[in-house]
Amino acid sequence: MIKAVLFDVDDTLYPSSKLAEEARRNAIRAMIEAGLETDLSEEELYRELQEVVKEYGSNHPRHFDLLLRRIGADPEPKLVAAAVVAYHDTKFAYLKPYPDVIPTLMQLREMGFKLGAVTSGLAVKQWEKLIRLGIHHFFHEVVISEEIGVEKPNPKIFIEAARRLGVKPEEAVYVGDRLDKDIRGANRAGMVTVRIRRGKYQDMEPRNDDDVPDFEIDRPRELLDVVRELAKD
Amino acid sequence: MIKAVLFDVDDTLYPSSKLAEEARRNAIRAMIEAGLETDLSEEELYRELQEVVKEYGSNHPRHFDLLLRRIGADPEPKLVAAAVVAYHDTKFAYLKPYPDVIPTLMQLREMGFKLGAVTSGLAVKQWEKLIRLGIHHFFHEVVISEEIGVEKPNPKIFIEAARRLGVKPEEAVYVGDRLDKDIRGANRAGMVTVRIRRGKYQDMEPRNDDDVPDFEIDRPRELLDVVRELAKD
Repeated sequence: MIKAVLFDVDDTLYPSSKLAEEARRNAIRAMIEAGLETDLSEEELYRELQEVVKEYGSNHPRHFDLLLRRIGADPEPKLVAAAVVAYHDTKFAYLKPYPDVIPTLMQLREMGFKLGAVTSGLAVKQWEKLIRLGIHHFFHEVVISEEIGVEKPNPKIFIEAARRLGVKPEEAVYVGDRLDKDIRGANRAGMVTVRIRRGKYQDMEPRNDDDVPDFEIDRPRELLDVVRELAKD
Repeated sequence: MIKAVLFDVDDTLYPSSKLAEEARRNAIRAMIEAGLETDLSEEELYRELQEVVKEYGSNHPRHFDLLLRRIGADPEPKLVAAAVVAYHDTKFAYLKPYPDVIPTLMQLREMGFKLGAVTSGLAVKQWEKLIRLGIHHFFHEVVISEEIGVEKPNPKIFIEAARRLGVKPEEAVYVGDRLDKDIRGANRAGMVTVRIRRGKYQDMEPRNDDDVPDFEIDRPRELLDVVRELAKD
């Protein structure tokens, strides 16, 4: 019997990839507006920035400095500040739950399920997202990789989340967008897995049997059908 | 002949002390709302936070962590994130120029003066403030202590600002709120000094002769009378 529903956060509950892309593109436009002199086009600058993010990781604190150095420009504080302001303002514009998310979470709670979030990243940053999304009160437990020292797709992070919610892994449904992180890890932990086709990994194919989800949905509210169907078993 | 007008930023062009106080108080309320359990009152927590800021400096990146440790509470990411969100949202609400500032800057430029900012702090942070205030385009030069390795009241930072604007120090007016930083340093550099009575230092008394300003004003637009009077000489 299903007793808990757990969620990935980025690209599952809000448009994380879209946010990052728009925020970075606006940051580049802001640096040009603030006086960045370069022969590179906006598109070329965006690609360089993507490389910086890939090489130094998305949580590196100085992407714009690195970008400027990389293209041979002076990392002037004025340019960096213009980028930071544009990035943050854009971030706040996109840090909103997908349309269906709040009614679905509310209904799942009313149906008596325990709710959890299992997410990768820096703890304060992931909590900041949940708070800004206005959904932090819906979750009985939030498990963040930095806090427990285990990353997806390691099944341990999913097993820990189930333990904290007081349920067995097989009594939990896990919903996420990434086959190679969310679905693989939750399958290995023994959970029922639901892939939501959202964000930049929506067309990814399974690389092995563990990447195959039990269910696939396009919108959060379809999850209600999934849990109703599971209740019949 | 006066050719340039230079400005301090924090508490001279926008309500910096008020911003910091309200942002910190709201951060404390947010931690309580997010579940902080403590016997301390909001006021006591605020005073502890002020001590943290004083002891570790206003640019330390983890004030809320330190506060929680200090009062014997677990520095839970959820609490820290709640504080960060509240702090930033409040910051953006108060990061607005004082009412007179923009018309005064505009008129000074139209009168043919070179405009500059001379400010203490981290370069990217100070630029971020000018950009958010919407006043960065008004200044011909912005000189930030971090960038040149000299802090107010050292006269060198004021002399460097005059040099960059292509004027002699005695051809420049400097406007600031702090007698012991702004007025002392600009006097020692040989500038005409104007104290604006704003923010938490508005009642400070001069500690030595260098702290005595040539003029005192209550509102930015009174600066126009000052420069007109100086033009008569």
